[in-house]
Amino acid sequence: MMAMTRTETRSSTCVYGPDSRICIIAGGGNLPAAIAEYLDRQGIGVFVLMVEGETDPQSRLERYDHETLALEEAPSLIRRLRHHGITHVVMAGEIRRRPRISAMRPGLGLLRHVPALIRALSSGDDGLLRFVVAWLEGSGFRVVGAHQIVPDLVAAEGQFGRIQPQKTDWRDIQAARIAAEAIGALDIGQGAVAIGGRAIALEGIEGTDAMLERVRSLRGHGRLAGKLRGVLVKCSKPGQEARTDLPSIGPRTVEEAHAAGLAGIAVEAGSSLVLNGPEMIHKADALGLFIIGLPPKETRHEG
Amino acid sequence: MMAMTRTETRSSTCVYGPDSRICIIAGGGNLPAAIAEYLDRQGIGVFVLMVEGETDPQSRLERYDHETLALEEAPSLIRRLRHHGITHVVMAGEIRRRPRISAMRPGLGLLRHVPALIRALSSGDDGLLRFVVAWLEGSGFRVVGAHQIVPDLVAAEGQFGRIQPQKTDWRDIQAARIAAEAIGALDIGQGAVAIGGRAIALEGIEGTDAMLERVRSLRGHGRLAGKLRGVLVKCSKPGQEARTDLPSIGPRTVEEAHAAGLAGIAVEAGSSLVLNGPEMIHKADALGLFIIGLPPKETRHEG
Repeated sequence: MMAMTRTETRSSTCVYGPDSRICIIAGGGNLPAAIAEYLDRQGIGVFVLMVEGETDPQSRLERYDHETLALEEAPSLIRRLRHHGITHVVMAGEIRRRPRISAMRPGLGLLRHVPALIRALSSGDDGLLRFVVAWLEGSGFRVVGAHQIVPDLVAAEGQFGRIQPQKTDWRDIQAARIAAEAIGALDIGQGAVAIGGRAIALEGIEGTDAMLERVRSLRGHGRLAGKLRGVLVKCSKPGQEARTDLPSIGPRTVEEAHAAGLAGIAVEAGSSLVLNGPEMIHKADALGLFIIGLPPKETRHEG
Repeated sequence: MMAMTRTETRSSTCVYGPDSRICIIAGGGNLPAAIAEYLDRQGIGVFVLMVEGETDPQSRLERYDHETLALEEAPSLIRRLRHHGITHVVMAGEIRRRPRISAMRPGLGLLRHVPALIRALSSGDDGLLRFVVAWLEGSGFRVVGAHQIVPDLVAAEGQFGRIQPQKTDWRDIQAARIAAEAIGALDIGQGAVAIGGRAIALEGIEGTDAMLERVRSLRGHGRLAGKLRGVLVKCSKPGQEARTDLPSIGPRTVEEAHAAGLAGIAVEAGSSLVLNGPEMIHKADALGLFIIGLPPKETRHEG
């Protein structure tokens, strides 16, 4: 078994110091809690803004200093961050809803950005995230990525668990990666599934879990008759705002991939996040799925 | 209302003469019956090979001289076509299943092509279709496309019915077209849906109808909150084997698009097929959907 140690990431770590006070803007999933726990263990002050209707109730973020933020209250964000003495902001977890601009009351600070916000809202996930990052940084906060705070989250290159891909699986990995990169380049989605050497399902806004459910139901499709195995590949988008929206996998991804009859999962090392790594690997080993960290697209030279 | 007359198509028409005897290899949907009817009206001899488990029973192709072909009997195809004095072959309609090679008994003629067939089976739809076309043509048959036989089937440029796209719909058309072309270039699918200016669903092997069903269920998705309208775009794949697998729309596409809450449909003129055009336009007008034929990607100069 290869260790899931961290390889080179897109940005350097150690972005905060002992005097930092970090706000986690918490969307869905396990990532926000993973960050909060990690910071708490390091003795770094944590403040959590739980996004209304998005934060996973099971993540028990109430343990930390926290408040709730309705998306339409976003204009008050700067004021609230200042009030709590925040120095760094990390946005973590999926936010499925988009704010209704008509219900917002932008203050003077945000008002001049409204045309840009409207553009951003319609220009895809990455456009919107870039807008929020620029707004926060322009207001004096340092925006950091989850991978910069918790290096252990970053997927390493190589095999994660005990199971190795078979030779034919590499054709699926290749086909799904090409597809995932193509739709990533269009800022549509981050994932694709290939079976029998070709991409058969592409992720739109339905998300990875829903795509895997679809693959499960497509197993009866004529074109997949007699075809076994198959692979899920998740890639970051080229030029993606790495501080906000890296692709992630976790124990649930393994379960869903297994239910869809897939043989394994591959992610781009260095720019994908692994949630609950030990549990995920244990599950993958038990279910017989491989998990692979692929070499990043952009090769980087060290030194 | 603009007429749905034919514009320039990818290949010239009038590919057969009065002595031709045309075999329709009939997969699913309404296209095979549309071709058979048209040829029958012209007094051209028609022979239908109904692909077992694929031909739509409602298409009533039994009216014509016909036989049934199991996919695994494909090796006998040449012999059977010769036996019936066929000169031209048109493959029409979707074939969802893929033959199990293990159940085939290739004759000497096909045997030497088996390695190429195995490659073709795993190289995507277009690879397989190219193989079949090459095999049939190498055996002396002329393979023609539905659009070469029935020019009326080919989608023209411009507005089909009474409903016009709104200004914002053009952003959706643009976004969905870029996405559809990207996945077409990878030989994955031919369709995409955009809502609110961005592509949100991409067609894999599930097909257009299943994608539209998905869009219908995604209407409750947070990211689409407050977003109305949206567009389905279907495009041919770049360099697509135009004689076999052109994207098509028909009355059912209109119904499904309407059920998914979309405002309209756009197809690539000259290389998309329109089934039951008058019924489709009538339905679109009644449901308030626009249908648009987009200028083809490759601009062609006449004369």
